[in-house]
Amino acid sequence: MAQHSEKAKARLNSVNAALESGSLATVQRLINSGLAPQDVAHLLESSPPKVREILWELVDSELEGEVLQHLSEELQGHFLRDMTAEQVANVTSDLDIDDVADILQQLPERVTQEVLDVMDQQDRSRLEQVLGYPEDSAGGLMNTDTITIRADITLEVVLRYLRRHKELPDMTDALLVVNRNNEFIGSLSLRKLLVGDPQQTVREVMSTDTRVIHASQHETEVAKLFERHDLVSAPVVDAQGQLLGRITIDDVVDVIRETADHSLMSMAGLDDEEDTFAPALKTSRRRAVWLGINLITAFMASAVIGLFDATIEKVVALAVLMPIVASMGGIAGSQVLTLVIRGQALGHLSSANFRWLFNRELIVAAINGVLWALVIAAITLLWFGDPGIAAIIGAAIIINLLVAAVSGAALPLIMKARGIDPALAGSVVLTTVTDVVGFLSFLGLATLFYL
Amino acid sequence: MAQHSEKAKARLNSVNAALESGSLATVQRLINSGLAPQDVAHLLESSPPKVREILWELVDSELEGEVLQHLSEELQGHFLRDMTAEQVANVTSDLDIDDVADILQQLPERVTQEVLDVMDQQDRSRLEQVLGYPEDSAGGLMNTDTITIRADITLEVVLRYLRRHKELPDMTDALLVVNRNNEFIGSLSLRKLLVGDPQQTVREVMSTDTRVIHASQHETEVAKLFERHDLVSAPVVDAQGQLLGRITIDDVVDVIRETADHSLMSMAGLDDEEDTFAPALKTSRRRAVWLGINLITAFMASAVIGLFDATIEKVVALAVLMPIVASMGGIAGSQVLTLVIRGQALGHLSSANFRWLFNRELIVAAINGVLWALVIAAITLLWFGDPGIAAIIGAAIIINLLVAAVSGAALPLIMKARGIDPALAGSVVLTTVTDVVGFLSFLGLATLFYL
Repeated sequence: MAQHSEKAKARLNSVNAALESGSLATVQRLINSGLAPQDVAHLLESSPPKVREILWELVDSELEGEVLQHLSEELQGHFLRDMTAEQVANVTSDLDIDDVADILQQLPERVTQEVLDVMDQQDRSRLEQVLGYPEDSAGGLMNTDTITIRADITLEVVLRYLRRHKELPDMTDALLVVNRNNEFIGSLSLRKLLVGDPQQTVREVMSTDTRVIHASQHETEVAKLFERHDLVSAPVVDAQGQLLGRITIDDVVDVIRETADHSLMSMAGLDDEEDTFAPALKTSRRRAVWLGINLITAFMASAVIGLFDATIEKVVALAVLMPIVASMGGIAGSQVLTLVIRGQALGHLSSANFRWLFNRELIVAAINGVLWALVIAAITLLWFGDPGIAAIIGAAIIINLLVAAVSGAALPLIMKARGIDPALAGSVVLTTVTDVVGFLSFLGLATLFYL
Repeated sequence: MAQHSEKAKARLNSVNAALESGSLATVQRLINSGLAPQDVAHLLESSPPKVREILWELVDSELEGEVLQHLSEELQGHFLRDMTAEQVANVTSDLDIDDVADILQQLPERVTQEVLDVMDQQDRSRLEQVLGYPEDSAGGLMNTDTITIRADITLEVVLRYLRRHKELPDMTDALLVVNRNNEFIGSLSLRKLLVGDPQQTVREVMSTDTRVIHASQHETEVAKLFERHDLVSAPVVDAQGQLLGRITIDDVVDVIRETADHSLMSMAGLDDEEDTFAPALKTSRRRAVWLGINLITAFMASAVIGLFDATIEKVVALAVLMPIVASMGGIAGSQVLTLVIRGQALGHLSSANFRWLFNRELIVAAINGVLWALVIAAITLLWFGDPGIAAIIGAAIIINLLVAAVSGAALPLIMKARGIDPALAGSVVLTTVTDVVGFLSFLGLATLFYL
């Protein structure tokens, strides 16, 4: 019978039940025979540290590699730290080269070399090729398990050649056609091979407009190509056009997931590889840094307020109302910031259309500035019965929303040009700007025109 | 020669150059022969409204369907609005059923019916089947272009049967095996078909542990299954186990992208289908709603400050320092909130491990609370030379960080249980809590112990 995802869920639940009742033998049996390695990895990711250690002890050593491959980098590093080079070489011996490379990159340089030393010659040279490229490049993402053929043979011969294999590599949707110099010249999809006339040659049937990826391309470029052209796999070549390997959609899906995750987590000052169940001390240390950075901006805002303490002393209503100006600016700015950061990620923004976007945001800020300035002024008038303060808060709102739009649109571009990640630094800088401008405009206008 | 992505980029640049120089004939030629439909769609997405209208006019009518399929829902709706039912039926005639269904879902009910009426019988009945399921379910995501075979034939026969096709559907990585009642019983991957002995029967070679998807499953469940098990396609069955169609990885990648996008955009109160280049008025209207909601919470914070105006009048330093307490609480809370929302999205959180996470967050809040309370108290002491205010702000920081941790962890769970999207509503409610508690604890403690 076909395996339903409900079954997997039910099994996962029985593991949890067995864990709670403390029957480790049952847990061990379920982990090693009932669950797929992916599900065991998911179970480990979803467990608090102590339970995690117990579960990992129960995983059969021949399954460890498969499970490791599906763990986050943080957890991979955690479990690998306690292994010897021989153990690492053993558990990774059955995995795809690109997955082994990912795992080895979690180890210190010295240990990686030790692991390479105990591997067999073929695995080592393949692995060294992948490790020679940056982790976030196409070369670091590629697999070397390609099936290559020549263009001048018939499909009949290809079919006979394939039957000599016991199995084809996972995610093989096409055979790659190379010339005698191992240069990539085209691809023959399995779908075409199956419907083609066996007497035709590969050259007659192969497709020559295949999207080719250069080993040095960044992984986000690769992901865009896969997404836009609905690819399952794509050949990777070096600068000379020689075939190095191929990239498959499963690894690209991970890149897409991680890139999207990165923006979300960065905007809250979190690491996207952050383990949901990291221990309290580790978590505290990481969060403390972000709180410290934000504290500096908070004190800058306070310093601005401090400039006007004499004004506030005379008109306490200003202290009551001032957070509104800062908060509205922060919200409006973060909307623009998020839109621009997403536009950058999707590749929608260029110098050609940025001016249009910038002007649009200024118009939007003006419209919403006037609208909400009127609403806030009206409420202020009703609350404090003072037309002066009402007029001043209205003016401050308009100023802050315009400044928020300018900063929200410009900051990501400036940061990206300087190599700073806008998702990480954008919101802190933006909040500083909208807080400072908000307090400065409101309290400053009050000091100038009201007292 | 193989087509490089640099070439596509160069072509896109020449379109932009031609657009700027106003030579529309060149643009038209490039769009209709030089660029892939995906790239034309990308060009439309990246263009301001007026340029967009001009470009769309230049797209050949036979390419319109292909281009439409790659546009965001918002833009699909925009261009479809001006078409007649016949035109819609025409431009979509060559597309996959699931893509046509997506496009039709952008039309008013009445128009969809008109389009169905002018389609041929077979297309209509297939389409009605897909349209019968919610857009965000497996049924709405599936395609009906499956190749099915019986279990008792030999691979030899399968190979001959396939050769009768001119081509196999895109993303076909397996043939689906059904019994005489059209119930799904297994799948035969092309990879196995190619290496298998031609005399073996399908039953001997097929895999029976294929992940099967139920038409009613939610699309995010489907995406998790594809991600976790590295699938290229998966069969979809109804409640009786009858094969309905299949889901392919290209559509799942879109789901993954949209789900991730949704969290990021929602947290800034933006619609994830939001067009980066929407006109100013439309954008203003959407943003105004979010600003209005946040204004309510800002006034609630002001009302809390207003309770203590007498206290502030006596000690202006309180007004200067109070934003620090609120801001630190907001930052700490949003970190917990983001972590929990991501944990929910990844399926890492359950009632079994939530208690652990909740306690961890309380410990982290206590550690960071004490740490930053000391730092802030020390700075306050240096700044105002007043140990009383220093002690009070320290205490308020600890209280607000603890409350922020509790709200950040609990809000997403409470909201999810009530069917509210935590990514959308979480940050507003959280900020309200940390602002109100921040001002209340700081000004309240000052009123009680300092005056």
